[in-house]
Formats: sequence, structure tokens, C-alpha cells
Amino acid sequence: MKIVIAGAGAMGSRFAIKLKRGGNDVTLIDGWPAHIEAIRTNGLQANLDGEEITESFPIYPQSEVTADTPADLIIVFTKAMQLDQMMQDIASLIGDQTRVLCLLNGIGHEDTIEKYVATDKIFLGNTLWTADLIGPGQVRLFGEGSVELQNIGEGKEAAAKELAEVLTASGLNASYSENIRYSIYRKACVNGTLNGLCSILDVNIAQFGNTATARQMVQTIVGEFAAVAAHESVELDVPEVVAHIEKTYDPAGIGLHYPSMYQDLINNHRKTEIDYINGAISRKGRKYNVPTPYCDFLTQLIHAKEDVLEAK
Amino acid sequence: MKIVIAGAGAMGSRFAIKLKRGGNDVTLIDGWPAHIEAIRTNGLQANLDGEEITESFPIYPQSEVTADTPADLIIVFTKAMQLDQMMQDIASLIGDQTRVLCLLNGIGHEDTIEKYVATDKIFLGNTLWTADLIGPGQVRLFGEGSVELQNIGEGKEAAAKELAEVLTASGLNASYSENIRYSIYRKACVNGTLNGLCSILDVNIAQFGNTATARQMVQTIVGEFAAVAAHESVELDVPEVVAHIEKTYDPAGIGLHYPSMYQDLINNHRKTEIDYINGAISRKGRKYNVPTPYCDFLTQLIHAKEDVLEAK
Repeated sequence: MKIVIAGAGAMGSRFAIKLKRGGNDVTLIDGWPAHIEAIRTNGLQANLDGEEITESFPIYPQSEVTADTPADLIIVFTKAMQLDQMMQDIASLIGDQTRVLCLLNGIGHEDTIEKYVATDKIFLGNTLWTADLIGPGQVRLFGEGSVELQNIGEGKEAAAKELAEVLTASGLNASYSENIRYSIYRKACVNGTLNGLCSILDVNIAQFGNTATARQMVQTIVGEFAAVAAHESVELDVPEVVAHIEKTYDPAGIGLHYPSMYQDLINNHRKTEIDYINGAISRKGRKYNVPTPYCDFLTQLIHAKEDVLEAK
Repeated sequence: MKIVIAGAGAMGSRFAIKLKRGGNDVTLIDGWPAHIEAIRTNGLQANLDGEEITESFPIYPQSEVTADTPADLIIVFTKAMQLDQMMQDIASLIGDQTRVLCLLNGIGHEDTIEKYVATDKIFLGNTLWTADLIGPGQVRLFGEGSVELQNIGEGKEAAAKELAEVLTASGLNASYSENIRYSIYRKACVNGTLNGLCSILDVNIAQFGNTATARQMVQTIVGEFAAVAAHESVELDVPEVVAHIEKTYDPAGIGLHYPSMYQDLINNHRKTEIDYINGAISRKGRKYNVPTPYCDFLTQLIHAKEDVLEAK
């Protein structure tokens, strides 16, 4: 299958390696010149569960994508604020049969993708795989994960299940979800706590979990997500979500991992996705008249840290 | 005048140097062995507005204070959580005529001091002087400041004014306040914003002030202080307090200074006074049924950072 990874950062690289090793024809599109140059020169270098590997890929800057055979599948893995530009840039790769799978963190990305792709070709998902970007062309991939996905077009359940099978055939452990919006909100709770809190406290997930006030902060933030989600007919089970987050603290699991926002902001001084996670809850809270002070404050703190680090 | 500085950290050292140079008999009491040892060996070394100076003082560990001539004046300058132990340890220095001046940051310390000293000998104040502790026996003192103070015992206005004159005679720019509780709340707003926010963002005051979200965070926190203070008949003028805080951002003033909490927590891995500043507002908020989510969250973040840094 001809697959395009639109956004070949840490997580895009993981999917690219798995899908190529699974026998697919994988092309990368990215916007970071040094990363593109490194992959062109040395291949994509990964530490995959302790083993140093290198995989070669065709990779193109998103500003130079030209008309080509349409892709069978495009997986978008940009940062949230880069999604719209990416969709514009890859328009020539989108044919009548091209499916687009969105695995971005955060809430409401289908509104952006629908500007460029018919609804019945769009699939939403989320993933519990993790990945660290070490530097241009270099990633570290460890631990296990999974993918959940669902069609957003009516009557496209079979297509969604087929897509899950494609991913699973390459070891990505994907399954069809009956209620992906619940899963997306639940995942957004993980990101809405660990991303911002680990970044602002300068810690990994296990260190955060070891603090005495972690539970109070997580419970309050998840409570705000749940109060907003309830206005969108998504009924989050707050104790279940909190317990789910607390499982990530285990150093034998992903506890020693630094969340993606930490990697972006603290390591690489890049702007974060906070406006599409906690910031999205703050906006929706204002819309629904639900107070979201912890999300407001965390969003402000992360933006302040972006300013301090002159994040680009 | 025989003056004891009970708590000879950065700010206590500033007052000690000024008061000794003003002709007083100044003794230091402290709880940090390395600091005591350094001052005994090398004197108290200070960079005073760019000039390197050394002053010698008698200094005693608070655990070894023995019966002595009572002091005329004791200025307590401990950390808030160390105040009760210090008052116990210096009991032998408190005579019938000994006045105690409390210049600690935070709210409600008179309740602790009244356990050891008659109310009509207690004076509350606050100061806008700043000071940095560089290491054991070494401080950096720059810029100008002032002191405000008031009696808490009835009919002791004259004694308070006399005390202000003693401090002013040594260049400490002290004045009598008609409403020290207002001043203490107003000062607590400065500490309740800059201390926690600069510590958690790892920045100095000017860097904090340069962030785009500083004003939103400061306004919200000061609003919580004001809502609580209103239940204690203190009517804070929120825009005035916010403007007062924003004046501190100027690099030509104290903008390049790191707040005391930053010095304690980030530089020296010591536990902070957050429970006596934002944490006090959270406790009072619960008592008065006033929501204080920014103070709650900031208190939790600082405690988490204490845990991460294994602050003692």
C-alpha cells in the first residue's frame, strides 16, 4: 500500500518504520529542513527497544510536494497548529480513493481536515505508542502501544476496520473503536495533565507521579475536561480516567518517558500544542459557561514558558 | 540598642549590616550550621550595591541560645515554617521590655508570636528591601527599599513610631503604617505572584514580566487574594496592586532579581513558604467559601517541585 506520513516527527517516524517493515511503500513529508536533510543523508536512525537501526525513506519538504500518484493512505502526524498548512501542502497527493487518518493529539482536528477531504474518507484515531525525537533524523522508540480508530463518515465502519487491519499487519496493534470521540477525550486527559505538568515541572512521567500533589492536580484537570465533554455528549468516567493516567507513572512502562510537549518545549524550544489541549478546554468552557481555571492557568504557564525560551 | 536578628538569611543579613553600621549592638541567631560557621570564620561578606564588604557579628545557632541580657529589639526574619521553633529557641532573650518586630512574608504570623510575647510588645511590618543569599556567609544586596510597621497592641502607636525611627536612623527607610494589615496583604500579593510564578517558570522578575500571559496570571491571583481579604475587612484595590506588581518588572529596579522562593527552592533545594502565602489564601478561601483555584494550583505545583528537588 502506498502510504504517506504527513509529519515525520517522533511518532510519524515510529509509524513509518513499522509500516515499511510491514511491506508498505512509505513516503515521508515534513517541514523541518535539518530533519529532512539528515534522513536523506543517513536514513532515519532509531533506537528501537534498545536496538540501533536505520531505515531509508523518500522524504520531501512539505513546501515542495508536487503532483504524484495519489496515496492510498495519508497518516497526518503534524503538530496541531501545523495541520492546516500541511493539508494545503499535500493536496496533490489526495486522490478520490485516498483515505486520511488523523492521529494528532487534541480535540476537533476533523474540522480542519474536512476542508480538504471528503468526510467519508476521514478516519479519526488516537494512539498510545510513544516516541522521542533525539535530534534531526534520530528517534528513540521503546515500549508497546496501540491504536484505536473510527470512521467519521456514515456507513464507513468496514473501511475503518480494514484500515485497522492494515496497521495491525505491521505490528501497530490497531483496533476499531465504537466511540472514538470518547477515546480522544480520554487521551486528551492524559495529554492535558502529563504534557503540561511534566513540562512546567521539568520532570519525566514517573517523577511527576511521585509528587505528593500529583493526584490533586490530575483529578482537578480531568474534572474540567469531563465537565466540558459532558456538553458534547461524551460522559467521561473521571475516576477511571485518573486511574488510567496514574498507570503511566510506572517506570517499567512509559514512566521514564518525557511527554512530547516536554521534548518540543524544553529540549527543542518549539511552540507547544497547549492551545489544542488544555487551551481547547478553556475555549469550550467559555462557550458552555463551565469554569476551567486549572486548564486556563496551565495554558498560560506553558505560553509563558514558550516566551521565556523564545520557542519558535 | 541591643538588637537580635532571629534568622540571619539574606534579608536578615541586610538588616544586620545596616543596623550595625548605624551604631547598634547586633547579634545574629540562625539555624544553618554552614552559614554560622562561615560568618564566624570570615565574617558576613556582602556585595552591597557593587561594593564588596565584610562585617563581623556574634552569631549563635538557635539550638544553643543561652540566658543572656534580654534584647531591646528582636527582629524575626526566619522562613515562615521556622518561626514557631525560633520563638521557642530564643525565649531566654525575651525580657519584659523586649520588643519583637515581625517582618516575615506571608499572613497571620502574629498568631504564632503571641504564644511567646505579650501583644503590646509585638509589631508587624513588611519590607520592600531585597536580598540574595549567594552561599554560606555571603549575600548580595542591591537597590533601595523601605519598611512599614505598626503596633498590634492597643495604644502602642508611639512605640511603633519610635521603632520606625530606630530603623530609619540606620538607613532602613522605615515608616509607621496606619493599616499594616492592608500593607501585608498587598505585599503578600507580590509574593503570591512573583515567588511562585518565577520559581515554577525558572525566571527572574523581568523575564516573567516579559511573558505575554503574565498579566492574566497576576490579575487572577490578586483577584483571589482580594476576595479572601474582603472577608477580613481589608479592601484591596486590585488594579492598583497589579500595577504595583508590574512596576517590579523594570530591570533598572529589582527586575533582574530572583524572588526569595526561587533562591530557596531552585538554587538551594529548600522547602518554600508557599503554604503561608498562596496556601494561606487557599485555606482562608475554604473557610470563607471563596474559590481560589489559581492559589490552589500554584501551591500544588510548588509542592510538587519541592518533591522533585527533594527539598529539605
